[in-house]
Amino acid sequence: MTAVGIDAIEIRSGKLKLDLPNTFAPQKGDDPEKYTKGLGLQNSSFPDVYEDIVTMGANAAKRLMDRKGLEPADIGRIDVATESAFDHSKPVSTYIAGCLEKVYDGDFRHANKGERKFACVAGTQAVDDAYNWIQAGRHRDRAALVIATDTALYARGDPGEATQGAGAVAMLIDEDPDLVELSTHQGYGSMDETDFLKPNQQFPSVDGKRSMQVYLSRMREALEDYESVSGKIHLDDFAYAPFHTPFPGMVRKAALLAYRHVIRDTEHEDALADAIGRQPREEEYEDREAYEEAIREYMDALKTTEEYGAWYDEVVEPTLGLSREVGNWYTGSVHIARASALRDALDREGEFVGETLLVASYGSGAQAEIHAETLQEGWRAEIEALDIDDQLDARYDLSWDEYEDVHDVHEYDKDLDREIEEFTAPDGEFVFTGWGRMNERKYEYVE
Amino acid sequence: MTAVGIDAIEIRSGKLKLDLPNTFAPQKGDDPEKYTKGLGLQNSSFPDVYEDIVTMGANAAKRLMDRKGLEPADIGRIDVATESAFDHSKPVSTYIAGCLEKVYDGDFRHANKGERKFACVAGTQAVDDAYNWIQAGRHRDRAALVIATDTALYARGDPGEATQGAGAVAMLIDEDPDLVELSTHQGYGSMDETDFLKPNQQFPSVDGKRSMQVYLSRMREALEDYESVSGKIHLDDFAYAPFHTPFPGMVRKAALLAYRHVIRDTEHEDALADAIGRQPREEEYEDREAYEEAIREYMDALKTTEEYGAWYDEVVEPTLGLSREVGNWYTGSVHIARASALRDALDREGEFVGETLLVASYGSGAQAEIHAETLQEGWRAEIEALDIDDQLDARYDLSWDEYEDVHDVHEYDKDLDREIEEFTAPDGEFVFTGWGRMNERKYEYVE
Repeated sequence: MTAVGIDAIEIRSGKLKLDLPNTFAPQKGDDPEKYTKGLGLQNSSFPDVYEDIVTMGANAAKRLMDRKGLEPADIGRIDVATESAFDHSKPVSTYIAGCLEKVYDGDFRHANKGERKFACVAGTQAVDDAYNWIQAGRHRDRAALVIATDTALYARGDPGEATQGAGAVAMLIDEDPDLVELSTHQGYGSMDETDFLKPNQQFPSVDGKRSMQVYLSRMREALEDYESVSGKIHLDDFAYAPFHTPFPGMVRKAALLAYRHVIRDTEHEDALADAIGRQPREEEYEDREAYEEAIREYMDALKTTEEYGAWYDEVVEPTLGLSREVGNWYTGSVHIARASALRDALDREGEFVGETLLVASYGSGAQAEIHAETLQEGWRAEIEALDIDDQLDARYDLSWDEYEDVHDVHEYDKDLDREIEEFTAPDGEFVFTGWGRMNERKYEYVE
Repeated sequence: MTAVGIDAIEIRSGKLKLDLPNTFAPQKGDDPEKYTKGLGLQNSSFPDVYEDIVTMGANAAKRLMDRKGLEPADIGRIDVATESAFDHSKPVSTYIAGCLEKVYDGDFRHANKGERKFACVAGTQAVDDAYNWIQAGRHRDRAALVIATDTALYARGDPGEATQGAGAVAMLIDEDPDLVELSTHQGYGSMDETDFLKPNQQFPSVDGKRSMQVYLSRMREALEDYESVSGKIHLDDFAYAPFHTPFPGMVRKAALLAYRHVIRDTEHEDALADAIGRQPREEEYEDREAYEEAIREYMDALKTTEEYGAWYDEVVEPTLGLSREVGNWYTGSVHIARASALRDALDREGEFVGETLLVASYGSGAQAEIHAETLQEGWRAEIEALDIDDQLDARYDLSWDEYEDVHDVHEYDKDLDREIEEFTAPDGEFVFTGWGRMNERKYEYVE
């Protein structure tokens, strides 16, 4: 089959930041390490008053199109993945296309636009749809633009408040991609769960404990499903393993579980047996409870081994770099995890071309998807072109009072009794300018 | 390529009806023909108090699975298209899968679930995604379940109130389909429009006049785009032309426009020239205004010709049968138009196997999609298996006061000061039973 995958990627962060150890923690009366060590987060990104899911998505897409020398006629499909939509009917992709048409000659008149929703996994689903569209031969030599964009806000005081974030990832899906080729093989773990949802409400209802259990269960099932088609995977198959990252601490749990799964019945399990024993097998235990207790003990021991630590530091820890600085971007999260890993690879020895990533996406509600990606010849140039460090350095550092204002600005149902001024000056970007007569949101490009 | 298309279809109507000429018109003080002749509608379907997009979708899917002898493991993908979602994060497909898992052995643990939104065109987009998934070789011999489900309600007093409706269409997308094979070729007409939207609101804001213009423009562009890949289409290429049907009167306008487009520069235009002249060409007119006036005159004349009338009665009118009885089902609308056409074909002479439909979907915001479908050997048995006539006959006929109650029950923001009893008794179906502790909606199967 034709090689199809991600040809280019652009990342757009919200232009404000909340410093968790230095601004959030003192206000909450918490030890800063609750955030930096426990959750694994340093800062959250927030949208300025003129930013939203449309502007962040359109700004990412514009930089991508400019950098790759694309015109609207080169794009046959624009799909947006979000769980922050502000319209029940009109998709965000039409707004983004409308923005882009303000600055390019030509239009997206014959491009299929759409919107996908399934918590944080929809970005990957939209990438998969674009891959399938090309493999099905319906693309007429055009590429697909997939944009994962979210403002991940929680109600004030919610336990999730420290994991907030806002940003967009734009990806160009094409034949003979420069960045990564996607595997045909996929694994899914998917069940109807009530762990995190937004029933007719902007901010989520979350069962935090259940949500973490469900993440781990669905990931395990997706891995098993993936292996059922790809064959058993091995510890050295993958250079990196980017996971959906609601916060880095969650990925630490998932990585340990994945490691235990992958080394079972291999020489790696044997090598650790002297130090921590072999993995508990359910048939060796009288009941489920005893088995689970034994698993917990094994996991605690496994976590402290040099072997696991070395693997984690090489394959997983590098995927968390951007997440620590921006928080949870929902649909974009696993895609900044991939970018974080590849930024790490820039600094390592080796070409990495032909090496493979194990990419594990997840959405509450709940579904995990696992597939493989193979690095292409052009990966280094694509990753070097990212300007996300500049964006992060330029963020405005919010005080607590300013943070409260920003949260209010972005809460749809809030009747603001005061004018909140923008914190940064727009410069060469799309901005939100207000609501129109049919309650549509309106946008302009500021030079 | 492998033949991929719709293997089976099931239609589920809301169990209540509002009689437009006999109940709605008198209350509004209107001539009943405003509805029956102007809009072309007789009745609207409404959900009973225990019905919603999940129950209608799950009930359609269950009948489909039972009829085709399917188990959950046979399904690799469940996609729901809707613009009536009640959650910003958790997709309706997970709720529907959860319902189905109550009555089948096994589960949909390894099926990719999702949700698509783009006004009324998302049902067709979800069918296309499923087609592409199979053609891309990722389906592992499993089929996809696509469910288009909506409660198309308008604010009380809105001009759209007479076009309301509620129902679901479940479709099985598979290799070697029994009903229709889908064309690889597709045409799109798609632009950012503010014609119909639901910005953070359940009921739409509609610019009615603009909405009709946009429907016609996007359809024309989609047809031109389709012809750019399929070659010019001819009047006798298609047995039926099912269009998205917000109300039958809209399709009458679109059909006339399509007819004019298709006969241009053909023997059909020549044959009509003596009676009504040839079609105006823009270059023959001094300005756009004069040209458009000439077009209007030609269209008025064309509409009255025997040739057009015969074509419309054979190819388009039969697609409107169900729509007249149920109103607008948004994402399901074009799919009941297809079913209406094929119910008509059951009564005609001829096998129809190998004959082609031109299917024209549309969503406000705005996008049209046009593709072809070829009838398969099993089409007759599939259409004969539908029980929609029984469902329509069994609907409870609402009085005006009862209609007002039903509308209130299904308005999310309405604080009801009274208990509204169900109008029908659930019987062998999924029902909504109330809200859970995290505001999730809860369902049960009633024997």
